[in-house]
Order: sequence, then structure tokens, then C-alpha cells
Amino acid sequence: MIGKSITRVDAYDKVTGRAKFTDDLTPRGCLVAKVYHARIGNGIVTSIDTSEAEKVPGVVKVVTFKDVPDHCYPTPGHPWSVELAHQDVADRNILTGRVRYYGDDIAAVVAEDEIAAARALKKIKVEYEEYPVEIHPRKSMYGSNPPIHFDKKDNVLARTNFFIGDVDEGLKKADTVVKGSYRTPIVQHCHIENSISCAYMEKDRIVVVASTQIPHIMRRVIGQALGIPWGRIRVIKPYIGGGFGNKQDVLYEPLNAFLTMQVGGRPVKLEVSREETFCNTRTRHSIEYDLTAGVDKEGLLTAKEMKAYSNQGAYASHGHAIAANGLTAFRLQYACPNIRGEAYTVYTNTPVAGAMRAYGIPQATFANECLMDDIAAKIGMDPLEFRKKNLIHGYYEDAYLKPIAANTNGIFQCLKKGADYIHWEEKRKAYSHQTGDIRRGVGMALFCYKTGVWPISLEIAGARLSLNQDGSMQLSLGATEIGQGADTVFTQMAAQTLHMDVEDIHLETVQDTDVSPFDTGAYGSRQSFVTGTAVKECALLMEKKILDYARKLLPDERRGLSLDHGWIYAGEEKVLTLEQLALESYYSLTDASAITAEVSTQVKKNTLSTGCCFAEVEVDIRLGKIKVLDIINVHDSGILLNPQLARMQVHGGMSMGLGYGLSEQLILDEKTGRPLNGNLLDYKLMTALDTPDLAADFVELEDPEGPYGNKALGEPPAIPGAPAIRNAVLHATGVAFNEIPLTPQRLVEGFKEAGLL
Amino acid sequence: MIGKSITRVDAYDKVTGRAKFTDDLTPRGCLVAKVYHARIGNGIVTSIDTSEAEKVPGVVKVVTFKDVPDHCYPTPGHPWSVELAHQDVADRNILTGRVRYYGDDIAAVVAEDEIAAARALKKIKVEYEEYPVEIHPRKSMYGSNPPIHFDKKDNVLARTNFFIGDVDEGLKKADTVVKGSYRTPIVQHCHIENSISCAYMEKDRIVVVASTQIPHIMRRVIGQALGIPWGRIRVIKPYIGGGFGNKQDVLYEPLNAFLTMQVGGRPVKLEVSREETFCNTRTRHSIEYDLTAGVDKEGLLTAKEMKAYSNQGAYASHGHAIAANGLTAFRLQYACPNIRGEAYTVYTNTPVAGAMRAYGIPQATFANECLMDDIAAKIGMDPLEFRKKNLIHGYYEDAYLKPIAANTNGIFQCLKKGADYIHWEEKRKAYSHQTGDIRRGVGMALFCYKTGVWPISLEIAGARLSLNQDGSMQLSLGATEIGQGADTVFTQMAAQTLHMDVEDIHLETVQDTDVSPFDTGAYGSRQSFVTGTAVKECALLMEKKILDYARKLLPDERRGLSLDHGWIYAGEEKVLTLEQLALESYYSLTDASAITAEVSTQVKKNTLSTGCCFAEVEVDIRLGKIKVLDIINVHDSGILLNPQLARMQVHGGMSMGLGYGLSEQLILDEKTGRPLNGNLLDYKLMTALDTPDLAADFVELEDPEGPYGNKALGEPPAIPGAPAIRNAVLHATGVAFNEIPLTPQRLVEGFKEAGLL
Repeated sequence: MIGKSITRVDAYDKVTGRAKFTDDLTPRGCLVAKVYHARIGNGIVTSIDTSEAEKVPGVVKVVTFKDVPDHCYPTPGHPWSVELAHQDVADRNILTGRVRYYGDDIAAVVAEDEIAAARALKKIKVEYEEYPVEIHPRKSMYGSNPPIHFDKKDNVLARTNFFIGDVDEGLKKADTVVKGSYRTPIVQHCHIENSISCAYMEKDRIVVVASTQIPHIMRRVIGQALGIPWGRIRVIKPYIGGGFGNKQDVLYEPLNAFLTMQVGGRPVKLEVSREETFCNTRTRHSIEYDLTAGVDKEGLLTAKEMKAYSNQGAYASHGHAIAANGLTAFRLQYACPNIRGEAYTVYTNTPVAGAMRAYGIPQATFANECLMDDIAAKIGMDPLEFRKKNLIHGYYEDAYLKPIAANTNGIFQCLKKGADYIHWEEKRKAYSHQTGDIRRGVGMALFCYKTGVWPISLEIAGARLSLNQDGSMQLSLGATEIGQGADTVFTQMAAQTLHMDVEDIHLETVQDTDVSPFDTGAYGSRQSFVTGTAVKECALLMEKKILDYARKLLPDERRGLSLDHGWIYAGEEKVLTLEQLALESYYSLTDASAITAEVSTQVKKNTLSTGCCFAEVEVDIRLGKIKVLDIINVHDSGILLNPQLARMQVHGGMSMGLGYGLSEQLILDEKTGRPLNGNLLDYKLMTALDTPDLAADFVELEDPEGPYGNKALGEPPAIPGAPAIRNAVLHATGVAFNEIPLTPQRLVEGFKEAGLL
Repeated sequence: MIGKSITRVDAYDKVTGRAKFTDDLTPRGCLVAKVYHARIGNGIVTSIDTSEAEKVPGVVKVVTFKDVPDHCYPTPGHPWSVELAHQDVADRNILTGRVRYYGDDIAAVVAEDEIAAARALKKIKVEYEEYPVEIHPRKSMYGSNPPIHFDKKDNVLARTNFFIGDVDEGLKKADTVVKGSYRTPIVQHCHIENSISCAYMEKDRIVVVASTQIPHIMRRVIGQALGIPWGRIRVIKPYIGGGFGNKQDVLYEPLNAFLTMQVGGRPVKLEVSREETFCNTRTRHSIEYDLTAGVDKEGLLTAKEMKAYSNQGAYASHGHAIAANGLTAFRLQYACPNIRGEAYTVYTNTPVAGAMRAYGIPQATFANECLMDDIAAKIGMDPLEFRKKNLIHGYYEDAYLKPIAANTNGIFQCLKKGADYIHWEEKRKAYSHQTGDIRRGVGMALFCYKTGVWPISLEIAGARLSLNQDGSMQLSLGATEIGQGADTVFTQMAAQTLHMDVEDIHLETVQDTDVSPFDTGAYGSRQSFVTGTAVKECALLMEKKILDYARKLLPDERRGLSLDHGWIYAGEEKVLTLEQLALESYYSLTDASAITAEVSTQVKKNTLSTGCCFAEVEVDIRLGKIKVLDIINVHDSGILLNPQLARMQVHGGMSMGLGYGLSEQLILDEKTGRPLNGNLLDYKLMTALDTPDLAADFVELEDPEGPYGNKALGEPPAIPGAPAIRNAVLHATGVAFNEIPLTPQRLVEGFKEAGLL
């Protein structure tokens, strides 16, 4: 079953509309909640008057920051840590009177319907004392008065560094030193389904149905936010309309849980608008990089250095982990004896940045892969040749993250496939001396990506199987389907190990923290690797239990028993159907015991996934317009569990990478930090019409660590597109753009500066 | 925790309306189905025209008996048997063209709303060929032309018999022989919530949310009815508004499952009306008994014989099991060397009889306890004295059902308590010579009842526990809360064995066959005994796993570890909180594994529960009116798990027993078998105003077989009330009424016959 392009198990339900999402599960008569957001970018609330709002017909309850429990909690979707030093930053309350960004959450209304709630919001009167707004990390890091979080002396959330060898010495030895500053924009995930939850009480417990990637983590965070035992919280996760990391944070669910408690446990729905999704959920960090590298005469790196300044926004969310992840990636792929890295994550008065597909690596890879091309240009070497010369060959083990080890040869095969596809050598030459307004170029970029979060954080997954009377199998997981096809590949995995047809594996897609096995959820491209390991272990345990029971039914059988497609074999002979065995296990008057298997598996390994993007572009210099003529991603993600799903995953990531490189950016008002284009009209998300044909190819090297030879493929496709296009533009025009997106305005300004216009 | 009257765990949710029932879970836009019922009592459909119905605006689909899968299935809530001979009678199809009783199901309509569905029903045109109707088993048993089920030669569904010793010889030795014929009425369960289900499709599977006592059995029966693998069916059981055995049958759920398949998997709700509940679900069997007994000079039974004729109605449902259960009870309690029994279960053209609280024992006990008083009256002995003389003392083992063994002394203690309460001796004397229109009497009756169904059928139960991060516990069961308080006592059991507070046991009340452990459900007063055994076993396993993990955390600890109220103790010293241990188990970077425990337990034991009812009545001879002045049930159900809940259970059963004795009967039209009073206005259910103060008392003898010393209490309270009242009327008036209910009409006729009027 592994390696087959079976149809998604949720395809039919999603196409027909049967699939149930959070909004489908809100009960009749559900109340509606809306949030009152600050209208200033920095300051404190000096007075709030909700009396008129409370009078609006249909309003059930109005709460303000004065009503919520007076303590802070963290929101990121990380496993809890039993060690205080490794716990997330708890800097957020359910509502606040200390406004830290434009749109901060001050109050909330619960009403019988949407209209009453909206009317009531308009009747809330708030007065503020305002402070100056700072939206740039490299200014904010030197502090503000008052600091964005009163308990901190400056606005630096965290700073980390590392070094290998001696960079200063390495630079001295270099024949050429190249420096570059690169900057990535704030972008938003733009999942189809906005953040939505529905909360109600059951006995003395709170149930939250939520569109989330991380139901088990959400349970814990809501408990922390409300200050009640975690066992009193139940989170149910149905199908969700995408997440891309935004739903790896706990967003408005603690507020929603608090609100149902305020209305006697009645169900309350809290769905945010698209505009709120841009402003009030999470974004991808804008990071500014200063890079320096030295190369010797051979074109070999002698030293390299990265300094990163990450714009966190008003609250910590995933905090420094994202900038730090980019810093780690800086040392993983290119061989270099001397490497140094330093990263700052800085609070500013802007919307909060959090996890987004590939968790800091798109930013760091953009910077690093720009630098690689800039060095190659400076020393007059083909940029692909330069990379191949500097990439690590063979087995590699990271100095800091010991379990991260990989056979890195996959990237060379990826590069060959990509170069062949795009006709690299031919076109690099053909486009080397162009004139005129329309010019073409080919560019490329590569990356590596960890599979899961070990050893930085915990990796644990659970799986449960139970044998049905008809010989089919129920599979329950804590891992989540978020559109990526997780349910399908888990079904394939169980079928593979149990030697069954996929039609006979019934996977429960809804996670319910009361009954689903514990798993931290969908992030870090971890599930097919970590949860996959649990599924395999559970399936092997189930197989053993089945054969143990078969031995009871066949006490005189001396041949070895095995299980295959609904039959128990003794040696080569079919002796019993699995259905017969199952019926006995349920209904035998002498020895009945329904057969189930459950595992909770800690995974203490990791492996690197690699890949590259090759793009051919046509640049209209006068219009500042880039046309992507051809683009391919080639990935080494180990064995493909489902090639068709893998290809779809790559296509989606490439589309996201194109938007990142070409058009997407959340623009903030300098004075208030207010998003100026926080809606799907003004924020230029790639649409089907904007997207060129996308090519995807793979190098299937079986990974020894992956349960089925597989490794990360969820996030990686989004990584290399933007720098590949930037490098293609560099090839086409000779102009190095160091900030994305490559909008017409930015291109025209760049071309003017370079004298092309 | 066992033995404490904690508040029901569902009390708050049920009182506030938070508790979710099937109708609360129907999704928005759910379609509505209604059933077209036959308007004749016996015959075949010769033509059916649905064309006009299909034209009604809002109608989505009309199906008839011609559209359904052409095979039969059984409906009773029995565990499946792997042996063909022990499988239930499969004599019903989802819809039928062979009408076997007035109201049989011929067609169904699915529409956008109730009104459209109702309108469409009226437009269906049906023509019949009619056969003669027979509603009496003792006539129907000799056959009909054609037979009610074409494949049977007569209308006897089953006949069984047994004997111990030689009854003919025993009767010869007797000094006095007493014969009596006794008859019980058809009654209906009258649970508050009518039968309701909501079915929809998920992937290639059918989900049925249903008000049922037996979700796991329902899954199997729907699979059989549709002829699809059982693993393709998912049944979800939320809170239900009572069942009393009616929902131990699979009712309209197979039809509902079929209907959703006909409308592309759209959700379809099928809720039957109160009138349909009377006519088209199940009733309690009316059984006619011919009894004979002989006693010697000492008043000791020398022989007794029972012949039973049970009115099954048109389909088998639980079939002969109910009459057979009464037959079994006939030999269990009174010592007698010679016993013979014979029972017939006969198809008739009447509504289908099935399981109802105490499964044949209220009928058999009525007959037998009437006979005991009739014998006592004939030999001039006090009826209590007569019973005590003949009851088995000490240890008893049934000749046929070997595992049924009991220390039977509990009944003597019950009798003493009951007699003391009612002032038996004093009043038997005081009321012995009355004249006038108003007379008083005291009467009593006793019974015994098996706990669960072993060894007649399979007993299996599952339980799963998982330790939450806060040290609280999730408990999942396949056993069902049906209003009896099951969730509460299971919570107490887990708390007891795990030495925890009940607040820290979070029991999942909803059964979902995809995720809940396998259990056959709520019937046979089995759950606290059978599932209780599984809960205890699971809790002990969980305790062991917790202590095993504690030993990992405390490798140098040499003292014995134990668990008590959130603490791990080493010897007498608190060394670790359970919360600390739980957090480590989830999040330890060195050794994480969430702790869960699951068992699937077969229970191969049984035990007898006993009890009695004492009643004092005042009879108005001219009005034929019985006023119950005082009434008490005394039960030996072993240790009481929750005395308050036990008392409530007894009160409910007593109310049912009073209705059975005094007022309830479903009256059928002789010509068509149509119910004449199948609604809550004309069917005289006891209301709060009709019910006297009820007294309940207990004899708490710890039962060695019960997991917590407990045994059956769910059904037994409903058993002894009716014969106790009948015997009190006999005492008051000297008139022996052999048929219930004791309505004014029946009493006046009886008193006239006896010359009192």
C-alpha cells in the first residue's frame, strides 16, 4: 500500500460537502461571540463603558479585560516541558487593558446572533492613554518607554548564538568576502477557513470544538489560560480548512472557553473574520539578515556568518524558536569549517508572528540562497557549480543537534534532476548576454529541513487499533488531518503493516482529547515520521495479538501463522479468515476478548529532508513584471507514501513560495502598526490565474530512520521558490534584489537604481 | 466511594438542559423520514402507487418494500452467536409487502421537513389482499392459512420444556392440589423519548446516531439488515430518554440507515410518534399461564407445573427468550422436588412484543405468586408463612444453569423487613373478618432475578482508562447510561479501585462504536455486575501501570509504592503527586509514554438477586377502586453502589409495577389487531398523582460474585408489585383476580361474580 497513489480517504466527503467542519458542528441555538479590538497601536485602556452594549437586544453577556483571570499563558503549539526553562513564554492574557498592537483584544460580546453582537461592539466606549508605536525590530530592540511588556527591561524577547570554528580567522583566510543584507516580508497563511471554535460545558468541564492543528496542546493551553485542571478541558477537532501553522497556535479558543463559562455553559461560537485573521491571529515573521561569507580561490567557503533580526510583533507566540530554527539551518547543509550565527527576536507593536509552513526556514533560506548566488556572481562561478562544490557529501551529523544525521547525497540527485529539467547549462549560457526590455534568466535554490522537532523538543505519538467483527480495523490517532492527506497515508501505513486493503482500515478523522490517543499534532512535518512510527508499532502489536488469538483457536497447528489480506495462513495454507477469528474474539462463549492494540511512542530520532527549486523567468524591465516560464521543485523526502498526494503537496508549497517571492506582503501603517491590506482583495495571494504550470519531481532514497523509509515533505515545498526566482531575476537582469516580494514597484526602483531604466 | 450517595454525574446537565439527546445532535438541514404503515392486520400488498407522493414539494425520496434488500434480519439486543443454532430469529425485513399486523411497515418517505413528509404519506396508495386476523396465542398456535410467516408450518415460534423429578408422582403424593390460570396484559414501556435516530454517511460508511440501549449490537444488526460488512456501520449513542427494554431492540435504525444511502448520504432523521411507539416498536408480552401445584399436610410443595402461552405478535424480536426466562424462574426460588415447565411463544397479528424491564419475570412472578397465595388460602395458612416454609434456605445451585448459585438467605431478611414495615401479622389478623363496601387487606409477593445473561448467552464488557496530565482519569465504556445512573456508579467504581475522588474520573457518556470499548449494552441488569467487573479489572491494571512508571521515576526507592488520592506513597510517605507523574509520562524527554489501560473482559458467572413487595390496600367494592395505602419493596441486591440511586431505581420500578397491576394495558381491536388506546391519554400510565408514597428498603449482603459485592437491581423493582397488590385485594375481599390490570371494570365484574355486589 505504501507508494501507491490511492485516492484520498476524505476526497469523496470533501467534494460532496459531507465532510464536517467546526461550523457544521455548532448546535442549533448557539450563541455568537465577537471581539472588541483596540483602535490604537500602543497604550493602555483608561476607561471602558459597556453599559450601552449590554442594552442591545439579543446581547447575553459583555466581558472586558477586567473580568478575565489575572494571569498569563503561552499560545504556541509546542509540547509542554516539565522543565521551567523550556516552557513557552507566557505573556498573553485572554483580554487585555494594555494594548500592544493595533487590534489587541480588549473586550468581547456574546449575543443571540451575529447582528446583535456586531451592534453591541459598536456601543462599547473605550478611552486610551497612547504610547509611541514602533513596528521595526531593529529599532524596537533598543527599548521603548514603557517597554511593550512591562516586566521586561527591553523589547528583546530572546537572543541566541552559536559558533563552529573561528569565523574571523576563516574570513581572514578567504580570498573573497561577500556581505549581504536580506529581508523577508510579513505574510499571512490565508487558509480557507478562518479561525473558528464553538465552546460549551458538559458537566463541570468545558468542551471546545475548534479548527486547530493541535487539539491535545490546545487542551493544555486552555487549562493554563483559565487556571483550571487540564483534565477539565475537552477539545474536539473535526475537518479543518487549512492551517499552515496559524492553527498551530492557540488563538481565540481560551476566550471562547471563558465565554461559555460566563453564560452558564451555553454553546458559544467564536468565528473571526478574514480581516481579523490577518490582524489578530498570526503571521510569518519578517526577518532581516546580515550575512557575511568568505571563499577561497577554489570557491570553497572558509567562513560564514548570519545575524538575524526577527519581528515578533506584540506577543511571544512561538517566539524565538522560529528565528533560531533558521539559525540552525544555516549550518546544516553547506560544508564550512567556520560558522557563526546570532539571532534576535524582538517585540514590536505589530500583529503577532507565529508558526508558518517551514518555521523560519523560508526566511533563512531566502537569505542564504541569495548569498550563495551573490558569491557565485562575485567570483564568476556558475551558482549551481558553486553550491555543489560546497555542499556536504555523504554522511553528516550536526554538531549541536546530535540525532540529526543524514546521508546527504539526495540533494545531488535532486540538483541533477532540476538542472536537466530546466536545461540549466544551456540556458545559463544562452541568457548570459541579453539586452532589451524583456530578458530571461534561470535561477535555483536549495534547502534542507528537519523531520519533526527532536531533539529540540519532545516527539511523542499514540495510535490505537481495534479489530471489527468483519475483520476490518478501526484506527484512532491523535495526529491531525489538516488538508495535507495525513488520514490517507496513515491508512496506507496501517494497511501495509497489517497486510490489509486500505478499504478495511477505518480511520477516525476527528480528534477528541477525551478519547483520541495523545499526539502533539500537525506541525514540523512530523506526523508521517513520528506518528507513522507509532502506527507501524501499533499495527505490529495488533498483528501479534491476532496471531496469538489464532494460536488459541488452532492449538494443534505446528506451522508458523501469518496474516495476509483477510486470511490467517499456517505456512502457505489458508486456515481461517480474519473475520472468523474476529467473530470468535467477540462472541466465543469459551474465550471472548475483543482485540485492540494501543501504543504511545516516543521518537528520539530525526532526519534531514532536502530539495531544490529551479525556475526560468522572463522579466519585463519597464513594467517591473516577472513571468515565471517554468518552475520545478525536486525533493528528496525518502520513500513517497502516496506519490499523487506528494505531488499535490509540492504544488501547494510551490504556489506559496511563488506568492512569497512575487506578491505577498502584509503592509503596516508606520504610525499605528495597523494592517493596510489585511484582506483578500488588497493582499496579493496567488490565485489559480497567477500560477504557472508547476512541475514536481522526487528522488526516492529510502530513509533508514523513517518508519516506511519516508521523511519530511509537508512544509519543505514552500521553501526554495522565492530565492530561486530572485536568483533567476539576477541571472536575467544582473540586478540583485535582496528583499521580497519582487513587486513591480520594487523591481522598477531596483532597475532604475541599476541604470536599466 | 462505593456505598456513597454521590449526586448523579449527569444530574446538572440533565436539569439544566445541557445534556444532549439524539434530536439535539441532528445537523442543520437534516432531512426527515416518515413511515407508511399498513391499514390492515393481515394480508399482502397487491399494489402500491407512490407517484403522487413523489410530486409533493419537498419530498426527496419515497421507498417501498420493493426497494429494500431482499433478506431478513433479527432485531433483538442479544450478543451475536458464532453458533447458528443460538442466533436470533431473522424474520423481519426493513419494509414488507407481507402485512403481519396492523401498522406493519410498507413504505417510507424522506422529505425536507416534517410537513412535506406527512403530506406525502397521505398520497401513497396501497391495495391489499386481506387474510383473517388472529390476536390470541392459544388460537393462533394451531396455525392459520396462510401462516403468519410463510416459511413456517404453524405460528408457533418456539416451544421449550424442562422437568426436575416427576411432577405426576409429586401431585399424587400431595394432600392438596391447586390449579390456576393467570394472565398478564400487553403493556408498553412508555419511555419519555420516543424512538429516534439520525443517519448519514461518512466516507463509505453509515453513521447512525440513535436512542438505544445497545449501540454495539445495533451496529451488527444494521449490518445484517443492509447486508454490508459490520465495520462499515458506526453507531453513536448520546443520552437517551429511557428505554426499559424497548431500546434493547433495533427498531427503525436499519430503515434509517437504508434511507440515508438512498439520498446520497445526506442526514436523515427518523423519529416515531407516541402512537407509533405503542403500535410499531415493542411491547411486553402478554402471557397466559396454567399452573398446578400440590402440597403435603405440612404445607410443603410436592410438585408444581407451569404452562405458558406467550403472545409474540407479528415478528420474533426477542422471541422465545422471554417466556423461557419466566420458565427458568419457576424453578429457582421455591424448594420443590418435582417441577415441570412448558412454554410456547406464538406469532399473532398484533404489535410485536420484545424485552421489557425484567424480561418475562413480571409475568411469571405474577402467575406464581398468585398461585402461592391461592395455595395458602386453600390450606388456610398465612401466605408469608407458607412461602417461608417453601423457600430454599442456604446455598443453591440451579440444575440447568450451573453458574447460577446463590446464598439465598437474603430473601428471609427482606421478608422480615417488609413484614415489619407493613405490620403483617397484626394487619393480616385485623383485616380477616371485614364487611361493608370499603375493605382493607395486606398482600405480598417475592421474586428472584438473575444478574446478567450468563450462561444462557455471552457476557463481555470492555473498559478503557487514560491518565490525564492533571492526574485525573478518562474512563470510556461500551456500557450505556439509559437513565438508570450507570455513569454515576461506574465513576464511583473507578474512583474506589483507583483510590481517587469521583470528581477526577471523567466518564465519557456517549458510546461510539468506532471508539468505545466493546460491550453489549444495558439489559438484563448486567452492567454494574459485568461491566463493573471490567471497570475494576481496568482500574487495577491502570494502578499497576502507574506504579510501574513511578518505579522508573524512583529507581532507588526500596519501599512498596501505592496510590492514594493523587499521591504516590512509598511506604507511609508521600513521594510524588500523581500529577507530577502524569506530566512526566506525557512530556519526559527521556521516557515519555502516555499511560492508558484497556480490558475486554468475559464474565462467566451469575448470581441471584431477590426481593419482595408488601402492600396494604383499601378496596372500594362498589366503585371497583383500589387505593394503595402503603407499599414497600425490600431488595437484596448485594452491596448498594449508591444508596440514593438504588432507592430511586426501586421507586421507578415500583411505579411501573403499580401501573402493571392497576391500570396499564394496551387494548387491541379483535378484528384488526389495531391498538385502541395506543396514546398517553387513553393508555393509563401511572402519573405522579396516581402514585402513593413509595417505601424502599434493602438487605445489603455482600455478594461474592459481584465486583463490588453488588448484584442486579436495574429491573427487579418492577417485578413484585402487581402480585402483591392482587394478593392484598384477595386478603381484603376474598376474591382472587387472576388477570391484571385490576381495573374498576374487572373488579366490579369479579365482585359481582363473587356475590359481593
